Amino acid sequence: MIKHIPSLEKLIRQLQHVPYLASKNLYRVASHFLSSDQKSIDQLCRAIIEAKEKVKPCKNCFNWTQTSDLCAICADSKRDRSSICVVETWHDLLAIERTQDYDGLYHVLGGSLCPLEGVGPDDLTVDAFLTRIDDGIKEVIFATNPTPEGEATASFVASKLEGASLLVSRLASGIPIGYSLEQMDRVTIHKAIAGRRPF
Amino acid sequence: MIKHIPSLEKLIRQLQHVPYLASKNLYRVASHFLSSDQKSIDQLCRAIIEAKEKVKPCKNCFNWTQTSDLCAICADSKRDRSSICVVETWHDLLAIERTQDYDGLYHVLGGSLCPLEGVGPDDLTVDAFLTRIDDGIKEVIFATNPTPEGEATASFVASKLEGASLLVSRLASGIPIGYSLEQMDRVTIHKAIAGRRPF
Repeated sequence: MIKHIPSLEKLIRQLQHVPYLASKNLYRVASHFLSSDQKSIDQLCRAIIEAKEKVKPCKNCFNWTQTSDLCAICADSKRDRSSICVVETWHDLLAIERTQDYDGLYHVLGGSLCPLEGVGPDDLTVDAFLTRIDDGIKEVIFATNPTPEGEATASFVASKLEGASLLVSRLASGIPIGYSLEQMDRVTIHKAIAGRRPF
Repeated sequence: MIKHIPSLEKLIRQLQHVPYLASKNLYRVASHFLSSDQKSIDQLCRAIIEAKEKVKPCKNCFNWTQTSDLCAICADSKRDRSSICVVETWHDLLAIERTQDYDGLYHVLGGSLCPLEGVGPDDLTVDAFLTRIDDGIKEVIFATNPTPEGEATASFVASKLEGASLLVSRLASGIPIGYSLEQMDRVTIHKAIAGRRPF
C-alpha cells in the first residue's frame, strides 16, 4: 500500500531514526504531520534546525549552552567549583538540578561505555573530564545510572582518578521511595542492605 | 536551567505537539537532535516538508495519495467497487490491508465523533461518504474502533444509511486471539457471548 506514496514512505523511514518513538506509532505520527497545518510543520522544522545551529556543548562540562561558550552552571560564580558531579547525559543533569540539592559543577560524559555497541572511552568526554581535575577539585560524585554500562563507566573513570587526593563517591542504590520491597529485584535489595544507614 | 538555552526550550515546546512522544522523553529526543549530524537533521526536516507538500487525501475515499487524485486502492480496477469499508484513520486502513482479507474500497472518516473534544460530523468526511452511496454499492462494513467514540460514529453514519438497500455490517467484537478470558473486561465477554458463532 505505502509503496504508492513514496514521500510518505520516506518520511516514515526518517522517523524511524527518532528515538523513543515506538515503531507502532510511526504511521500515526506521519499521518499527524500530513493532517497538520503548514504553519505548525514549519515551526517544528525551524525549531529543530535553529536548535541544531545555535545550541552547543559547554566547553568545560559538555552541558548544552547557547549564549556563551560556558553553560549557565559553569558560568555561575555562586556554584561550588570544588565539586564535580559526573553524569551520562544532559537529562540526567536536569534530573539532579530539579532536586536543588546539589550546587557544584557537572561533567556530561555523553553516554556510557558499551563495548557491544562500539562505545569506548574515546566516544565519551572522559579525557576532557580528566583535564578538569586539578588542585581546586575536592570531590567527584559519580551519578551514572545503576545499569551495567553506567557502573562500568563509573568504575573506569574512577580508576583514572586513583592517586589524586579527592573525595570520590557514587550515588546510593536502594529501594526508591514509594515502592515496596516485594516489587524489587534481588540486586536492588542486596544494594539496599549493603548500603544501609544508621537510623 | 533550560531557560538559559532558548532555542532548546523552543524545540521542546514544538516537540510537545508531536503525538505519541511521551513527555518524559521530550528532553531525550531534543538532546538526540542536538547530538545528531547535520545531514540527518536536514533529511528529517526535508522528509516532513516534502511529505506535507506532495501527499494529499484521495478525492474519493480520503486515503493518502501522492501521484494522482485517486489513491492506489480507488484507482485499482481489480478491487470490488460494490463494497466500502469505513475506517477512522489511515493506519486502521493499513491494518486491514495487511490481512489481505478485504478487496473492496475504503472510506477514511478522519477520526471519530467526540463532542467533548468538539469533533462533530462536519469535522469528519461523513458527507463525502454519503455522496458515494449509489446503486453500485451493495455493502458497507463499519470498521471504526470498538471504543465509545468509534461505536457512536458507526451508529451515527449507519443511521444516515437507513432506507438504502445495503448490507450494513460491523466488525465483530470479542476476545482477541492469544488472550485468556480472565484478562478480558466484562463488556468484551458480553460482546463475545452475544456474537457467538456456530461451531
